[in-house]
Amino acid sequence: MCVGLDVDPQKIPVHLSHEKEPMLAFNKTIVDATAPYCVAYKPNTAFYEAQGVKGWLVLEKTVDYIRAQYPDKFLIADAKRGDIGNTSKMYAETFFRHMDFDAVTLSPYMGYDTVAPFFEYPGKWAIVLGLTSNASAAEMQMQPTGNKRMYQHVLESVAAWGSKENTMFVIGATRAKELEEVRKIVPEHFLLVPGVGAQGGSLTDVANYGLTPQGGLLVNSSRGIIYASADEGFAEAAAMQARQVQQQMKNLLPVR
Amino acid sequence: MCVGLDVDPQKIPVHLSHEKEPMLAFNKTIVDATAPYCVAYKPNTAFYEAQGVKGWLVLEKTVDYIRAQYPDKFLIADAKRGDIGNTSKMYAETFFRHMDFDAVTLSPYMGYDTVAPFFEYPGKWAIVLGLTSNASAAEMQMQPTGNKRMYQHVLESVAAWGSKENTMFVIGATRAKELEEVRKIVPEHFLLVPGVGAQGGSLTDVANYGLTPQGGLLVNSSRGIIYASADEGFAEAAAMQARQVQQQMKNLLPVR
Repeated sequence: MCVGLDVDPQKIPVHLSHEKEPMLAFNKTIVDATAPYCVAYKPNTAFYEAQGVKGWLVLEKTVDYIRAQYPDKFLIADAKRGDIGNTSKMYAETFFRHMDFDAVTLSPYMGYDTVAPFFEYPGKWAIVLGLTSNASAAEMQMQPTGNKRMYQHVLESVAAWGSKENTMFVIGATRAKELEEVRKIVPEHFLLVPGVGAQGGSLTDVANYGLTPQGGLLVNSSRGIIYASADEGFAEAAAMQARQVQQQMKNLLPVR
Repeated sequence: MCVGLDVDPQKIPVHLSHEKEPMLAFNKTIVDATAPYCVAYKPNTAFYEAQGVKGWLVLEKTVDYIRAQYPDKFLIADAKRGDIGNTSKMYAETFFRHMDFDAVTLSPYMGYDTVAPFFEYPGKWAIVLGLTSNASAAEMQMQPTGNKRMYQHVLESVAAWGSKENTMFVIGATRAKELEEVRKIVPEHFLLVPGVGAQGGSLTDVANYGLTPQGGLLVNSSRGIIYASADEGFAEAAAMQARQVQQQMKNLLPVR
């Protein structure tokens, strides 16, 4: 399981407002509470950028905190970046050199250029949007192209650029039935699966159609965990929620 | 003309390194030098993010400087963002509320969700990627879908979401011949055209195929202008280069 740190300052518990950096205090507490139950954290950059310099600083400090306290956690910058080569190179520096993320989410619309600079960092990952969890995504991603869908063309192309050791795909939990098609194209790649919980995706469906013998799924939950409660017991509520999701996953996972 | 502020700290003149904020000093000087010849500035966020908090601060200060000194300039955040609705809303706040940009570039891959929150700011613009200037873009954007190309599907869809008063498209100058097709779908929308100069696009081709009776083109030049010289005369060199491009444009523009 991956915990999404999509922290909206208006949703964090009121009693944290006396802290010097309420978002950072919130993140540290959520991380401490959920660390026993997850393997990864995924801050969405939008929530930090919306606070300007202050927010960017919280993002950097959150990464540093997790790296120092929980060095084994996998850190994903949910940034959905994508630009021409010389610019994508700058984004790779941002998230892999300036900050110590393990992976970045990327949009495939501009092609190979967008993704290539991220492959130059050994041990790091590009996580490319395949089929996303939002309703309106279908208009682009499900668009027919020949005898397949646009997202299938994306999976085929991107899988050929990298390997299953440096590339993952985002497949929304709300698209669980399409996971069968996804697995025909990328049988072994890791998939990052958001959309369980607040967005309505079913964990059972995701496991049924998406699991590989090795697992192959990184299921993300954000709002369902981090906003489980808005009062002083928010850490315990988040921990309980995280534990519950992790337990569900454990029951669905193949024995290994 | 639009001047792209894609500022790589390693490419700015050495004599600026004694400044407290060399990138900011560079930007201010470039803006002062080129203001007589352009209508818009377009910082690419990647170059600022790669410097972390320090870079983000330079971006904010650059926007403030241009707003204060040249209030009529059109300010584009070249950010190529795109996420689900509640997250795109955060990006809209970042660039329209926290910073005072007039427009943001967006990736269409996640559909309507991605763009809709930007329409909620009257007078502001969404600039959606259509057909980009980089070579590898074709693999996605030129993909056939029915009797058209994927980028044509994008233009048709996005044009229906907004209006020509709040939506523009990015069409690379290296795709000048496709501009004829573009104009069949969006005859009146403004187009942001990067790729003239360093990327090899021809201004004459762009004008021939893309101009509308009202103009309808915002041609961007970045590296060709801002790195015209790396010595102490860089401001004069940038001004001269900007003046030259503006002169070429003037000669190609319809009389009005």
